[in-house]
Amino acid sequence: MKPMGPIPAWFAGEEGMLLIGGCGAASLVDDAGDTPLFVYDMAIMEAQVRRLRDAMPEALDIHYAIKANPYPPLLERMATLVDGFDIASGGELDRALTAGMAADHISFAGPGKRDDELAAAIFAGATINLESEGEAQRALRFAAEQGRTARLAVRVNPDFDLKGSGMRMGGGAKPFGVDADRAAALARHVIDAGADWRGWHIFAGSQNLDAMAIIEAQAATIALAARLSEQVGVTPPLVNLGGGFGVAYFPGDVPLDIRPIGVALGAVLDERPAILRDSRFAMELGRWLVAEAGVYLTRVVDVKQSQGETFVVVDGGLHHQLAASGNFGTVVRRNYPIAIANHFGAPPAGDAVNVVGCLCTPIDRLGDKVALPLVAVGDLIAIFLAGAYGASASPMAFLGHPAPREMLLD
Amino acid sequence: MKPMGPIPAWFAGEEGMLLIGGCGAASLVDDAGDTPLFVYDMAIMEAQVRRLRDAMPEALDIHYAIKANPYPPLLERMATLVDGFDIASGGELDRALTAGMAADHISFAGPGKRDDELAAAIFAGATINLESEGEAQRALRFAAEQGRTARLAVRVNPDFDLKGSGMRMGGGAKPFGVDADRAAALARHVIDAGADWRGWHIFAGSQNLDAMAIIEAQAATIALAARLSEQVGVTPPLVNLGGGFGVAYFPGDVPLDIRPIGVALGAVLDERPAILRDSRFAMELGRWLVAEAGVYLTRVVDVKQSQGETFVVVDGGLHHQLAASGNFGTVVRRNYPIAIANHFGAPPAGDAVNVVGCLCTPIDRLGDKVALPLVAVGDLIAIFLAGAYGASASPMAFLGHPAPREMLLD
Repeated sequence: MKPMGPIPAWFAGEEGMLLIGGCGAASLVDDAGDTPLFVYDMAIMEAQVRRLRDAMPEALDIHYAIKANPYPPLLERMATLVDGFDIASGGELDRALTAGMAADHISFAGPGKRDDELAAAIFAGATINLESEGEAQRALRFAAEQGRTARLAVRVNPDFDLKGSGMRMGGGAKPFGVDADRAAALARHVIDAGADWRGWHIFAGSQNLDAMAIIEAQAATIALAARLSEQVGVTPPLVNLGGGFGVAYFPGDVPLDIRPIGVALGAVLDERPAILRDSRFAMELGRWLVAEAGVYLTRVVDVKQSQGETFVVVDGGLHHQLAASGNFGTVVRRNYPIAIANHFGAPPAGDAVNVVGCLCTPIDRLGDKVALPLVAVGDLIAIFLAGAYGASASPMAFLGHPAPREMLLD
Repeated sequence: MKPMGPIPAWFAGEEGMLLIGGCGAASLVDDAGDTPLFVYDMAIMEAQVRRLRDAMPEALDIHYAIKANPYPPLLERMATLVDGFDIASGGELDRALTAGMAADHISFAGPGKRDDELAAAIFAGATINLESEGEAQRALRFAAEQGRTARLAVRVNPDFDLKGSGMRMGGGAKPFGVDADRAAALARHVIDAGADWRGWHIFAGSQNLDAMAIIEAQAATIALAARLSEQVGVTPPLVNLGGGFGVAYFPGDVPLDIRPIGVALGAVLDERPAILRDSRFAMELGRWLVAEAGVYLTRVVDVKQSQGETFVVVDGGLHHQLAASGNFGTVVRRNYPIAIANHFGAPPAGDAVNVVGCLCTPIDRLGDKVALPLVAVGDLIAIFLAGAYGASASPMAFLGHPAPREMLLD
């Protein structure tokens, strides 16, 4: 038997049926028409936003990084809850605007922005987080061609990292932003060129469960922003502190306690250098806001034995939930939390089982030697933490299966 | 500097421009309209089929596993070159039929076939490679409901593996097929139930570059097929030997010499047990037939420095070429062969560079510390071995970028 990650505390069962947003999983599948199905519970996302606002200093803006989950109905609701959207492509710009987010609350980061994407962002009036001097030149040129003033922030590759991050975005040579020692010169250049300089974007890492490491990185980020601003001699309108809040996916992971982070951040902001006195501050979070709100429901197609092991074969797989199969940015495969939705809370039965997807490849494994109640064809398997980097971050066309269904509970 | 895999021998340059199918890469991009672009050279695939037929015993059928590349124009041409298509979903069944492959030359494998997929395959007259006793029951039921005779083969989880395979499909507990010790009983059951029993499907592994290991596995496969057939007491119409031929992706990989495999297979078939005397034999290959024929062309959007390293940022990325980023079924990230298409054959310039995709994630790396000629914004980067498991096996929707273009050179 191998352990699995913790089922998020939001979920409970009623008469053995997993409830999502107060509805039984099986009836949600009936409503949607079929499995595989992603269900996103808006109430959980609202609660996360509320938890965040309660814990963080009042002055802190909350941005949603829509790459985590760009499902349009979810974006529409999220646009009413947060202070801004962070986007990573021209396609996400369209989605953000369609969802009703005002352009001047949209910021665009990404190391490979194409000319057409830069031009579209300037045309719309979104803020571009500049990733290089070359990108600045291109943005200024398009702004001049359009007769518009570009809204430009400078993304900084910080000279420190966020220790213990699942993904390191700063510290060392990186494709993101400009190195801290060139950041002030770039800001000065865009100011002198007549752009509307929006400030700094400093993103040190993501998927971090160590509150102390986040506290240290945020303090270092504000110190760096102050130092760079002194070099420019201008107060930045906004300092985007990045994200980094992790989600407890795996065995042994402990959900992040964000309250001490808010307390520490408040103290740092209270004592901030004069040059940042009139700046606004923002955090951008994707995964932390939405991951726990999502459940991937997939139906058991077959239960079979091979050489003493049991294989539970489902109609979904890594084409919808690549990360849960351990094939997306992870070195060692570990089990996401899994349950039988229609035997929720029942005790494990006998030997551990392997939950495999329907794809004809050995890497399509969603649960490795997990302890589940007795499972039968037709049962619904729930894979938790499916709200972020699921449907949109998986190779959906692989092996010619249909796209998953998605449903927002509002 | 880190090494990269070998550029397939089919490719050369002319006046510094990579030629694909005799056309310059830059003009192909012009024809397609933009990058990122997958170009597939049909002449290379034809040559691979020819090499295979020349090397293999005349009696051996060649099947194409369309999961490797289901691009419709490619399937249409491939349908005229090979003896059958192997499919893995109802969606692939539609594509195979649309491409003009006759249903009785289509076989359907995959551990999680849904009811609607089984029913569609029986309706069309395709062969179903049964993965379990439960699947057999479902297939027989749907055939009865339709008043049709199901064409059923039995997929066997062999009691040996293909040593050194990139993906092990047999040996040990597996979700694929039924264990060898239950296979004969299943075949006997479907025969007794009135199905048209088509024989055996025995697939031991894939992506193998060790000719001796493949020779041994094929001999073991035929011996197993004979033993199982003796147990059933019936000559199988077809024995599908699986695939397994690997492609040289990485540094140190040596392309597989298939000639000794053909010689050895011929000898084994000449000496085969009497029960297989009137059987046909087939190999199913996906990757080996198409991988080398594909080139992924992506344009340099930015060239930037960070802490002494150079980052070449392109407009493509892992959303189109997940495997090349090292995030799809590989444990250690290694470099696919890469070149600057418009400086093809030029000597490397100075320090190694990192080729990164446009996605805002540190895992989007297509070339790690590779030696390339001096590279500038606007250059075309070619990533080879993009003909298999590229566009269709990548998280295309991730971060909202457009789908890649695809082009078949015919």
